[in-house]
Amino acid sequence: MSVPFRIAIAGLGTVGRGVTKILQDHEATIAGRVGRPVQIVAVNARNRNADRGVDVSAYDWVDDALSLAGRDDVDAIVEVIGGSDGIAKNLAEKTLQNKKHFVTANKALLAHHGQALAELAEQNGVSIGYEASVAGGIPIIKALREGLAANEVTSVLGILNGTCNYILTEMRETGRDFTDVLLDAQEKGYAEADPTFDVGGIDAGHKLALLTALAFGVKPDFAAMEIEGIDSITAADIKCATELGYRIKLLGTAKRMEGSKILQMVSPCMVPIKSSIGAVEGVFNAVFTEAYPVDTSLFVGRGAGEGPTASSVVADILDLARGIQAPTFGVAAQDLKTAQWADPKELSGKYYLHLQVKDEPGVIADVAAILRDNKISIESQIQREHAPGTPASVVIVTHQTSGRDVHQAAAAIQALPSTVDTPTVLRIEQI
Amino acid sequence: MSVPFRIAIAGLGTVGRGVTKILQDHEATIAGRVGRPVQIVAVNARNRNADRGVDVSAYDWVDDALSLAGRDDVDAIVEVIGGSDGIAKNLAEKTLQNKKHFVTANKALLAHHGQALAELAEQNGVSIGYEASVAGGIPIIKALREGLAANEVTSVLGILNGTCNYILTEMRETGRDFTDVLLDAQEKGYAEADPTFDVGGIDAGHKLALLTALAFGVKPDFAAMEIEGIDSITAADIKCATELGYRIKLLGTAKRMEGSKILQMVSPCMVPIKSSIGAVEGVFNAVFTEAYPVDTSLFVGRGAGEGPTASSVVADILDLARGIQAPTFGVAAQDLKTAQWADPKELSGKYYLHLQVKDEPGVIADVAAILRDNKISIESQIQREHAPGTPASVVIVTHQTSGRDVHQAAAAIQALPSTVDTPTVLRIEQI
Repeated sequence: MSVPFRIAIAGLGTVGRGVTKILQDHEATIAGRVGRPVQIVAVNARNRNADRGVDVSAYDWVDDALSLAGRDDVDAIVEVIGGSDGIAKNLAEKTLQNKKHFVTANKALLAHHGQALAELAEQNGVSIGYEASVAGGIPIIKALREGLAANEVTSVLGILNGTCNYILTEMRETGRDFTDVLLDAQEKGYAEADPTFDVGGIDAGHKLALLTALAFGVKPDFAAMEIEGIDSITAADIKCATELGYRIKLLGTAKRMEGSKILQMVSPCMVPIKSSIGAVEGVFNAVFTEAYPVDTSLFVGRGAGEGPTASSVVADILDLARGIQAPTFGVAAQDLKTAQWADPKELSGKYYLHLQVKDEPGVIADVAAILRDNKISIESQIQREHAPGTPASVVIVTHQTSGRDVHQAAAAIQALPSTVDTPTVLRIEQI
Repeated sequence: MSVPFRIAIAGLGTVGRGVTKILQDHEATIAGRVGRPVQIVAVNARNRNADRGVDVSAYDWVDDALSLAGRDDVDAIVEVIGGSDGIAKNLAEKTLQNKKHFVTANKALLAHHGQALAELAEQNGVSIGYEASVAGGIPIIKALREGLAANEVTSVLGILNGTCNYILTEMRETGRDFTDVLLDAQEKGYAEADPTFDVGGIDAGHKLALLTALAFGVKPDFAAMEIEGIDSITAADIKCATELGYRIKLLGTAKRMEGSKILQMVSPCMVPIKSSIGAVEGVFNAVFTEAYPVDTSLFVGRGAGEGPTASSVVADILDLARGIQAPTFGVAAQDLKTAQWADPKELSGKYYLHLQVKDEPGVIADVAAILRDNKISIESQIQREHAPGTPASVVIVTHQTSGRDVHQAAAAIQALPSTVDTPTVLRIEQI
């Protein structure tokens, strides 16, 4: 058998351990598939003596992750430390400068520094593998970069955060409120102690920045993204969604708009219960694409966890061992365009509005007048009996309408003296 | 820009035209993605003067497809003629022998001669691209060969024939019978004049043979496959399935069984309505995989048609132009194992039984006794009022049971004097 492909792993947490396990357990299968052995040469982690359930004694242990980049005996460095800056960034730069491939599960790093790193990789004739950084075990980076390379993508939408999808699924199944379910998820280990990155939509945003770059050939630009999390979604919204035939999902959405602008946003949306993406529940992720000429595609799988994430890290390693290289974001880094970002409020479609208003004469007439003045027509409306003295809950689903008009109407409704809470506005994605 | 990648296209039907259109319309984008231009050098078809809605006058026209393989000015031949033997096979052999890459949408060719052609390709250091031959626009070959390369696949299940899925969807939506809907589908162009290949499950079988080889590292073996089509599915079966919470789909199923045997079969099955695969309707295809450590994945997209099929053909061309090559069935051809095939009747699970029996005393007791004697317990049962003198329709859903026991019971029930028709037996896939 020919020359081995040699790697070093920086970080032996959940993912690093998973990668090590796969390369050990599937050693022979992998060598058969790649045509050469894949060997771990060196590893690094904070605590040498931690029990990881995997034997790393055969590998060279280094205390300084950065020293891995300087080794002559490795072909690729696997970075599973995390963080958008600090060691991860330094290691990425040093690895690429030293003409070694860089494989990572670090979406934050690439969302912030992807363009600079892609340029560095190309200058040095090496590759960045980041399949694991978006949608865990789903091979979506490869699908967009190679499988759909003949296409012009018009939109990419994804359930990109398993924690959020788990929380929304639990809220629906149990009827409980967000805060309650979040606490429960934290106890079970499905949500971090500081859940902001997940429930605030930032993690989904990091992933979306990479999908957008790849799908539309533009520089990743996380800073330009409008992000809304799931913390304002109530049990009542979820109940209404079900009644109307929808599921609420936190979607990362990127679309090519008219005039070549690109829209990129993370926000809770409604999708039909009967759609394949509507059936994606719990910790699963999904990415839906629309492209010409292939039309619509959907990719579903586990979004996180040791096995799925490690599966994607190893897929990248095996590609490199096979000599498969493609530009980081699908085209040469210097050819990536600076996107003209569209205002997310420009997105037209059906919208869901949930209002809390005082139960007094004339309120509904006021709301109806505002909708009329904003050229919004109503497809369906739910208003239920409620306890005297409590606010009335009014749910409206609009016909196809401009997002700008809906948000304008929502602002006008909020300004009504009879409105008691900020109206919830959710886009309905008919996919 | 560097040296162009030059192709010749044999066959200018729907797919050949689609490929030509993409390469013309997306010329600049493709060159940007691949890093070099992709050029059509020569084309071949039966009728030079047909109006194809695409201009091929700039390309060298050849009347003999086989002559394309001998040209010095092409790097890859695209075969979209079709057929498991004849010109397609000759062209494949000659192309590979002449050390040129071979790209095809021809599942029949590879299901029958895949092993020999894979060996020929490797001997000559070239590749066979066949993404378009399975599940149209879904990049499933790439996903299995590269995206999930770190995994041990335990099962692959797919809705692999759009015509069947369209017919089953129409039957459910309109309540009409198979024959009726098939005629309609033929008129609309969704089914061929001779529909045997599609509705008989052969086309799905060809595709499954390739997925099985790739997923389990075995030689493709279409001849060993048990195949059942959808022609015996009745409107009543579909109605019962809906009532029970299922959809009927023609599934290609390949699973690793105990003792390293592999099961490979095409048959109509039931899947939960609420599952993502249950929501795959009409002409769409889907492939569901279960693998360790990535767990379950699902890939959904259009299974046929000019755009989706051409999208996959061009993806293969672009891979080759980028220098991406992988062994045809995931490992070197000489390392593919000769599979030990499992008897499909060994597959345990829940089963659906639909019986037509004379409405006379003791019949249900006889059926119940047969089920008991075969260790089958009943999860649910539907029997409705029916017109006097007509047979009674009895629908039974079993608990988890051995397929062998179910088929034995069905045979015994069929032998009862009160049974008036062959019982329908459908496996229920809980995916």
